[in-house]
Amino acid sequence: MTPHAARAPRAPEADPAAGAAVKATDRAHVFHSWSAQGLIDPLAVAGAEGAYFWDYDGNRYLDFSSGLVFTNIGYQHPAVVAAIQEQAGKLATFAPAFAVEARSEAARLIARHTPGDLDKIFFTNGGAEAVENAVRMARVHTGRTKVLSAYRSYHGATAAAINLTGDPRRWASDNGSAGVVRFWAPFLYRSPFYAETEAEECARALQHLEDTLAFEGPSTVAAVVLETVPGTAGIMPPPPGYLAGVREICDRYGIVFVLDEVMTGFGRTGEWFAADHHGVVPDLMTFAKGVNSGYVPLGGVAISAEIAATFETRPYPGGLTYSGHPLACAAAVATIRVMEEEGTVGSAADLGERVLGPGLRALAEHHPSVGEVRGLGAFWALELVRDRETREPLVPYNATGEANAPMAAFGAACKKNGLWPFVNMNRTHVVPACNITEAEAKEGLAALDAALHVADEHTVRAS
Amino acid sequence: MTPHAARAPRAPEADPAAGAAVKATDRAHVFHSWSAQGLIDPLAVAGAEGAYFWDYDGNRYLDFSSGLVFTNIGYQHPAVVAAIQEQAGKLATFAPAFAVEARSEAARLIARHTPGDLDKIFFTNGGAEAVENAVRMARVHTGRTKVLSAYRSYHGATAAAINLTGDPRRWASDNGSAGVVRFWAPFLYRSPFYAETEAEECARALQHLEDTLAFEGPSTVAAVVLETVPGTAGIMPPPPGYLAGVREICDRYGIVFVLDEVMTGFGRTGEWFAADHHGVVPDLMTFAKGVNSGYVPLGGVAISAEIAATFETRPYPGGLTYSGHPLACAAAVATIRVMEEEGTVGSAADLGERVLGPGLRALAEHHPSVGEVRGLGAFWALELVRDRETREPLVPYNATGEANAPMAAFGAACKKNGLWPFVNMNRTHVVPACNITEAEAKEGLAALDAALHVADEHTVRAS
Repeated sequence: MTPHAARAPRAPEADPAAGAAVKATDRAHVFHSWSAQGLIDPLAVAGAEGAYFWDYDGNRYLDFSSGLVFTNIGYQHPAVVAAIQEQAGKLATFAPAFAVEARSEAARLIARHTPGDLDKIFFTNGGAEAVENAVRMARVHTGRTKVLSAYRSYHGATAAAINLTGDPRRWASDNGSAGVVRFWAPFLYRSPFYAETEAEECARALQHLEDTLAFEGPSTVAAVVLETVPGTAGIMPPPPGYLAGVREICDRYGIVFVLDEVMTGFGRTGEWFAADHHGVVPDLMTFAKGVNSGYVPLGGVAISAEIAATFETRPYPGGLTYSGHPLACAAAVATIRVMEEEGTVGSAADLGERVLGPGLRALAEHHPSVGEVRGLGAFWALELVRDRETREPLVPYNATGEANAPMAAFGAACKKNGLWPFVNMNRTHVVPACNITEAEAKEGLAALDAALHVADEHTVRAS
Repeated sequence: MTPHAARAPRAPEADPAAGAAVKATDRAHVFHSWSAQGLIDPLAVAGAEGAYFWDYDGNRYLDFSSGLVFTNIGYQHPAVVAAIQEQAGKLATFAPAFAVEARSEAARLIARHTPGDLDKIFFTNGGAEAVENAVRMARVHTGRTKVLSAYRSYHGATAAAINLTGDPRRWASDNGSAGVVRFWAPFLYRSPFYAETEAEECARALQHLEDTLAFEGPSTVAAVVLETVPGTAGIMPPPPGYLAGVREICDRYGIVFVLDEVMTGFGRTGEWFAADHHGVVPDLMTFAKGVNSGYVPLGGVAISAEIAATFETRPYPGGLTYSGHPLACAAAVATIRVMEEEGTVGSAADLGERVLGPGLRALAEHHPSVGEVRGLGAFWALELVRDRETREPLVPYNATGEANAPMAAFGAACKKNGLWPFVNMNRTHVVPACNITEAEAKEGLAALDAALHVADEHTVRAS
């Protein structure tokens, strides 16, 4: 079967008047996420297919952001579109307390790919609610309140999820810790532990977690929550042994181990779930995004047999109107089947090993602004720096306005070259659809190459 | 145009083997909301149309619950199904930072019907996230932390929303108030203020809010959050003047007034929004459910000009991956157009005034178990009691198991009579699609009549 992304996208047809109308209505009535409404200028998008989207002015972009890292199979995959259309005609919606074919089948297919005994699926509308419910399950299961999470993380923007988040998006919503304790996870390039090797970083990070738990009181801790590979915070694959070490610590103290795979799940890292790289089975695993490539809002929690048993005779005290929404579940069923049939997970692994990894490392060699290349599968970060020696970031942490100008210029250069990048602080993430072709990947690498010259101008070498 | 619900639903075709398979897979893999997983027996649903759904055994049910009070235009409305299918084929999903036609148009149409200057729309996946974001907006806008909400309320199950909730579903997730203060809203039938008339209940409830604010410190309060008509907690229309009084109090102290219209919005009460009955414009209004009859998960916050202005140059510190999801927005556009063209809001008002109100009051006359009938539009509650004199509920507050047997027997009797009821504690809510026919409503009233005989057996008169 030919992967969908191998087909050429339609040529965009320009219709600037239509685009202006869409934009004017947006500006009059749409309030956008994470934005100063008067300072943004949203691009009006006319269409998308595979790895590309296009605006109303005839500009086509190769999407190296996958939306917000969710279109793992690309845009408008015909099999998933057809499945949505069929389910819409059959039974678009139904309340959560019933057994519905699309809901049952989605849960079965997800459980087929989750690690270990994570065979019960609680469905939500997205990742934040998945994290909220994982935390609730852990608290009720253990009878404890505290939850540990890492700095350099993102878990969503509802109250519990944003409090677990370790990046500045939390600050405005942080009204006290509400039972959350934050610790430092491993990140060798900017080691919190002054480590010089992966093995040292791993050992010290585990000791740090042990020490933090010892002083917090392990018997007060319901859960440790980690992104398997921290995503928006910087795509930092954990060193070998770290997750297994956390698993062992959690087991020792009866703490629930929650892995957040909202961004990493469903092929993104070249395995169905990033935990598979480490042979680690958490007690709870959250997912969203890739489960149906975001075609219909869906997220959820995969639950271990032990935690599911807690709620066999005791009611689970949580829920939502659209849990297991039939249309969203039908999209998940079709997406998982596409991924199985087209080998999307293997494609992502191959893309990382053979094309993106080597290609990005080659860019690093001749661009002084690239401090580090890290990642795997279709999940990569370039850490941009002013100075490779000191590792000073190209822009300060959480910079805005003028202070962020070098990264803004880099992003603009990508777009000028027909590439839509994912940019966060001093990093660009290379997170295309998992099934892009080698030619598409190389087109994107070439655009990055050109844009990195702009970043290079802001390094100490240039000044 | 003939309303969709006027068409007869297809006859269900029995296929017990298919139903058994769906059910077996559900039991193996689906973890259900608000349930002890081992004690539930979810009905496998094969299909639905208009006001009806059916199982795999040939049983058809008239849905007096509208799912969870969300299918305001009934199941499988062909115009909305077609719009979902069309949008799926065009652009199923796209990231929130862009201007997209379905997103712009949905915001425009929603703003056309929201009261006053609530003209900017922030989209979420559902009601809980809408409440989370309304609270965040209020806190940032005012620079204050505390939020006041009412007992006998439900606002959703994410951390901030569940803490605002005033019913027992909060308890398991209540790890301290996190800035939430609860007060008592008016409810004459079980008056917290020993009032004997609506006017007295209104005046005393406003005085209670004033007093609570005086002791909390009005300058510490960011928002007062109320369901315009509390929904799952009992469908208690506020007395005339109450919401206007709350509006005046909020204005006096610079407190943001949030109305939660997740359940009441989009025609349910016989107006586009329940606030319209009172001529009150809140600062923020949450919605979900009826916005697209739940065909695709969608919710949001309608924002006043003043609060929107706060975020013109200051970034709004919240967001989500699927904000303004194109497929969900296309379903909203189609649903609102259907409601406009078919006059669904007027149908709901007429249904309440001419059929459900008189019909339910007639039932009350000859059923001693009915303590009170209250509601409007397609939004009614029967409060079932053991004793009309003392108003002792038919089952104790938050009863389970044997203590809840009378209500369980009532619910079972409804289903036996082909009616799917909404049952909560000692109440049944009559919340069908807003566009059901008079004949359908009367069919449901007849089934209720029969089932109320079962409830009557548990009253003091019967014993």
